[in-house]
Amino acid sequence: MWGTIATWRMAHDGVLKASEALQKNGTAGDAVESLINVVEAYPYYKSVGYGGLPNEEGVVEMDAAFMDGDTLAQGAVGGIHNVMHAVSVARALSHETYNNFRVGDGATKYATLNGFEMTNMLTDRAKARWQKRLKELSNQSLNPYDGHDTVGAVTLATSGSMAAATSTSGLFMKKAGRVGDSPVSGSGFYVDSPIGGAAATGLGEDIMKGCVSYEIVRLMGTGLSPQAACDQAVYDFEAKLKRRYGRVREISVVAMNAQGQWGVATNVEFTFSVATETEAAKILIAHPGPDKTTKIEPITQEWLTAYEKRIKAPI
Amino acid sequence: MWGTIATWRMAHDGVLKASEALQKNGTAGDAVESLINVVEAYPYYKSVGYGGLPNEEGVVEMDAAFMDGDTLAQGAVGGIHNVMHAVSVARALSHETYNNFRVGDGATKYATLNGFEMTNMLTDRAKARWQKRLKELSNQSLNPYDGHDTVGAVTLATSGSMAAATSTSGLFMKKAGRVGDSPVSGSGFYVDSPIGGAAATGLGEDIMKGCVSYEIVRLMGTGLSPQAACDQAVYDFEAKLKRRYGRVREISVVAMNAQGQWGVATNVEFTFSVATETEAAKILIAHPGPDKTTKIEPITQEWLTAYEKRIKAPI
Repeated sequence: MWGTIATWRMAHDGVLKASEALQKNGTAGDAVESLINVVEAYPYYKSVGYGGLPNEEGVVEMDAAFMDGDTLAQGAVGGIHNVMHAVSVARALSHETYNNFRVGDGATKYATLNGFEMTNMLTDRAKARWQKRLKELSNQSLNPYDGHDTVGAVTLATSGSMAAATSTSGLFMKKAGRVGDSPVSGSGFYVDSPIGGAAATGLGEDIMKGCVSYEIVRLMGTGLSPQAACDQAVYDFEAKLKRRYGRVREISVVAMNAQGQWGVATNVEFTFSVATETEAAKILIAHPGPDKTTKIEPITQEWLTAYEKRIKAPI
Repeated sequence: MWGTIATWRMAHDGVLKASEALQKNGTAGDAVESLINVVEAYPYYKSVGYGGLPNEEGVVEMDAAFMDGDTLAQGAVGGIHNVMHAVSVARALSHETYNNFRVGDGATKYATLNGFEMTNMLTDRAKARWQKRLKELSNQSLNPYDGHDTVGAVTLATSGSMAAATSTSGLFMKKAGRVGDSPVSGSGFYVDSPIGGAAATGLGEDIMKGCVSYEIVRLMGTGLSPQAACDQAVYDFEAKLKRRYGRVREISVVAMNAQGQWGVATNVEFTFSVATETEAAKILIAHPGPDKTTKIEPITQEWLTAYEKRIKAPI
């Protein structure tokens, strides 16, 4: 059995590419990296890679991680600059003996020294959005933090190996050096090949308070289905955080187990893409359902058309 | 009941200070911050704060975190420069609405803007050690990574509130921007007031593969004593990592529950300091025992004298 699941509609082309590779017995690591690379390179996705929105100073800072479910090896970067494929840097770091998680200029230095593609990641379109937002902020008191969709993915190879990875430009208008959950083990991602893997998207500050991805994998390890594990981890934590912290923001997760079964949970509207040996690649849309469940439906053509129009609309 | 436990002999003076405050009904947050501040300010501790050893470029880069067990609020810094008390910056960040985890120049910028004490953190002694090591490394192939003792602490206030915090200068001779487990939620620290808290020290790259602190708190939440939770989390994970990753390096943990009971586990020689309402502050020494247990003994005067001599020996 092979399979892959990834966060947001934007991941779909990557899921198609990863599926092709997995079908041909590609490795879980190669598949998850290529999946994320597709999203990173597409300029109209404003929260990941090229075209990602900058921090408040106008600098695109990216976070990414890679984890090998066989060995538990991890690599991660936080606040890396000018790198086309942050997830590929994270994967290379996972092969190092030490220094697997690097941030800021040190992360960028590693990418440069190791021959990764460097480019100015601030597109004209992202710059225009930033300038527009600066203007809006000077005029009125707005919540600047509305763009923070991470691409997170889990892959299962026919060999039984699994991998997980994430990539994001983080919160729009974040403070310099702000890091979210995406490069943080157990929060943004976790995978353990004999059990399964999970990845998260939403407000990293909240996700980190609960180590949500680790908890989902742990619950799958006790025998829960991926859907039951996602429902329990997300909705129990959401209720706890509301009670204890006073408020809770966006949290969405995807998970797949070693049998290729999958699950998602969310406290907002959440699209995702999934493909397995027995299920053709498809985009689905999830909403929170009653009694700590998740309602999952096929995406409509209307939704897709409106999305396409929205991401390419003039700034 | 009040109590506090912290990693390594170096934490003892901080434990004494925190105990005094907790005895007078001080808050868990104030106590854990002051505990760590004492260690950060002492120039002879070469792995934390002032006097901490630099990265391979000669720059002292610090990681720290603070977590409030009542609200689950967290603040953390990675690779911060020239700040006397990294844990105090982390605590201030835990009060922000967003941007709670900041790294590199962005973290340093936050500290500067918010009036934290800035100082050149590279002492003459640390510089001499670094220069000596550079020379050794140019002569022979040595493992440069032998200094990475984090101070990590958990506090329980008479009110029932708990807090956890960490601070470290990280691996000696680390690559620029390398971040370990200390600022990573669930790996270096975790605390949930109704249950308990935990903090870790050792090779961050390995600790992050298992979200060890989160797992200890979770196990205490199922009813395990802190000692049983530490033993299970550390020794099971150690065995798993050896099997899956092929090797495992130093991992040591401390934990305390909401009743003031405590536990530790380690796969090396590990000193720690603990005090509660019913136990006077003391330094103890732990070693791995048989069958996934931990052997804990009083520290000897001999050990303490040798330690004192070692940390102040000419470079």
